[in-house]
Amino acid sequence: MRDVSIIGIGQTHVNEHWNASLRHLALEAISSAIDEAGVDHIEALFVGNMLAGELSGQHNLGALIADYVGMRGIEALTVEAAAGSGGAAVRQAYLAVAGGMMDYALVIGVEKMSDVVGPAAITAQTTSTDSDYEAAHGLTPVSIAAMMMRRYMHEYDASLADFAAFSINAHQNARTNPHAMFHNKLTVEAFVKAPMVSDPVNLFDAAATADGAAAIVLAPTELVRQPGNGTVRIAGSAAATDAMAIADRSDPLWLTAAELSAKRAYQHADMMAKDIHLAELHDETAILAALSLEACGFTERGTAVNFAKSGGMTRDGEIPIGTLGGLKGRGHPGGATGVYQIVEATQQLRGQAGPNQIANAQVALTQSLGANGAVAITHILVHE
Amino acid sequence: MRDVSIIGIGQTHVNEHWNASLRHLALEAISSAIDEAGVDHIEALFVGNMLAGELSGQHNLGALIADYVGMRGIEALTVEAAAGSGGAAVRQAYLAVAGGMMDYALVIGVEKMSDVVGPAAITAQTTSTDSDYEAAHGLTPVSIAAMMMRRYMHEYDASLADFAAFSINAHQNARTNPHAMFHNKLTVEAFVKAPMVSDPVNLFDAAATADGAAAIVLAPTELVRQPGNGTVRIAGSAAATDAMAIADRSDPLWLTAAELSAKRAYQHADMMAKDIHLAELHDETAILAALSLEACGFTERGTAVNFAKSGGMTRDGEIPIGTLGGLKGRGHPGGATGVYQIVEATQQLRGQAGPNQIANAQVALTQSLGANGAVAITHILVHE
Repeated sequence: MRDVSIIGIGQTHVNEHWNASLRHLALEAISSAIDEAGVDHIEALFVGNMLAGELSGQHNLGALIADYVGMRGIEALTVEAAAGSGGAAVRQAYLAVAGGMMDYALVIGVEKMSDVVGPAAITAQTTSTDSDYEAAHGLTPVSIAAMMMRRYMHEYDASLADFAAFSINAHQNARTNPHAMFHNKLTVEAFVKAPMVSDPVNLFDAAATADGAAAIVLAPTELVRQPGNGTVRIAGSAAATDAMAIADRSDPLWLTAAELSAKRAYQHADMMAKDIHLAELHDETAILAALSLEACGFTERGTAVNFAKSGGMTRDGEIPIGTLGGLKGRGHPGGATGVYQIVEATQQLRGQAGPNQIANAQVALTQSLGANGAVAITHILVHE
Repeated sequence: MRDVSIIGIGQTHVNEHWNASLRHLALEAISSAIDEAGVDHIEALFVGNMLAGELSGQHNLGALIADYVGMRGIEALTVEAAAGSGGAAVRQAYLAVAGGMMDYALVIGVEKMSDVVGPAAITAQTTSTDSDYEAAHGLTPVSIAAMMMRRYMHEYDASLADFAAFSINAHQNARTNPHAMFHNKLTVEAFVKAPMVSDPVNLFDAAATADGAAAIVLAPTELVRQPGNGTVRIAGSAAATDAMAIADRSDPLWLTAAELSAKRAYQHADMMAKDIHLAELHDETAILAALSLEACGFTERGTAVNFAKSGGMTRDGEIPIGTLGGLKGRGHPGGATGVYQIVEATQQLRGQAGPNQIANAQVALTQSLGANGAVAITHILVHE
């Protein structure tokens, strides 16, 4: 197995991009990543996307994007794992490069969600629940998260206001990230008064769907390391699954796939949770952020909400999360999100996070979840 | 790079399976493949699927199927490349095993297309055209193939009847394949009188969409080779793309992606077209079969239709294709088709093709196409 480094990153603003289609967004992010990487020979394109078929009537994004960005002929495909699609695409590219099957691989996470609203949008998003046993009975991704949150509140005696810290932290970090969707400050008072999406998940809790694209270029570390210049290396990479339907899981308050993939990534990197300096977690809802903190071993079971409330995950906290806004603040462009996490962790490790810079950040964890934790892909990045 | 062998295969009948959903079909094919492989430790599940989101309201098939077949926790994801999804999934699993990143990988191609009919089905299938520049103007996959066929007829002075040989051969081979959808004999007279789907592509030319699942288990050859027992080894594997929109291609009568991926696979296997004993091509329409024969180097440009007419691709011809029915005779369950091709080629190389057995078949080529050739994945299998 070869060491693999991230040699180029690119991202569009996350927003409602009414004037750009999938291929335009992809081109913008890929151009930046390729320019940065300074390579002219990409061997394969891995696309992370979850809903282009439903929302843009477009499949086969691999061929579409490869052609549009000037790489016609290249090997290209789409990787899908619900909202974990971006992380899964990075993982596939990593496997190919680490195994020596190719040298230069490009990953693009891209999603265009603004074009479809109303029932059609909900129907599309509900494809990442168990269609026969959840969606058919009226459940949606957010209403499932709401049940998990309700149960957490019951088990650990937490209030709605206790969860505010996750959104407040996300918005605080997003304010100074030019690529983020939201730049407004959030308070506990505003949070608890927000209209409900699916009680108790409210408008300032559920991450906004959005349009966006993020890209990275991977290469063997041995080919790109230059004397005196550090690189960002993928030290750990792992994926795992759990039951799709929440009712089928052994414990609705434990993200087994998140735990398994984190443990495998720690083992791969020969590290433990305490070695991580910052984490980009899948904070699609506060409850998912809380359960991810626990599953990754950053806090004990049942303590993540109090941990967040006491500032443990702010930029100068014990384990900063969502350092450039996370899903809530940067926005959540579906299958692009997992690649945004890697791009942002790379910014941090390179010292390029501007006002959001975490001091002495040398090791970052990213975790991409799909279907409220039915799939999890964890990466550990190190700067060295 | 390690040698990789196929150590287990499984398939359902291809048909309209009204009583089975995606997970049931997947279970049936996977059970057979795992039983045959005789392994109890699968490391990752690669799902080939193109339309489950649109047709079954279900994404994240990796987690869904892994759980349903008793592999909860395993790494799992979906690979999509339009109708080439099955071939692309095999390719991803191959990359992971050949690169030494895992030992035992499972691939399932699964598609459920019968549940949705009429305009919704056409809309779904049209996601594998260029949405902005083809579908938006009324083109569908079949009508694009019709334009290619019309041009071929013009350029090479071919008649509708000249194309009958492809369907007749497919139906002849399907008659004795118990897993095939169609078992009826076809004649030139019936072919030329068939109602048009998109003139000149008729009902007996356009491959029927269907439900089905096919599975294979991959492992490093060095771990599974036993003295005296041959294995089916993947000697060549490659993928390539072309422009999505037919109008953007440099030549509408040349499948550049098919040619590129075939050339790369030949190079990988250190072989040439003349070394291949049988080919499972993507004969979704006769024109695609003809252009694939030419792109893979089995016949000269402009000669494939005459080659077929003279029996060159029958079971005792120069290069037998669709030996168990191909897409036309076995049926075309979207993202499962590419895995069926590998399963059938493996049956041939093992000498397990029954009445369809090609004598002395030691080397087989499979080619999975998506979007009328915008993406192509080619594998070369050898028995040794």
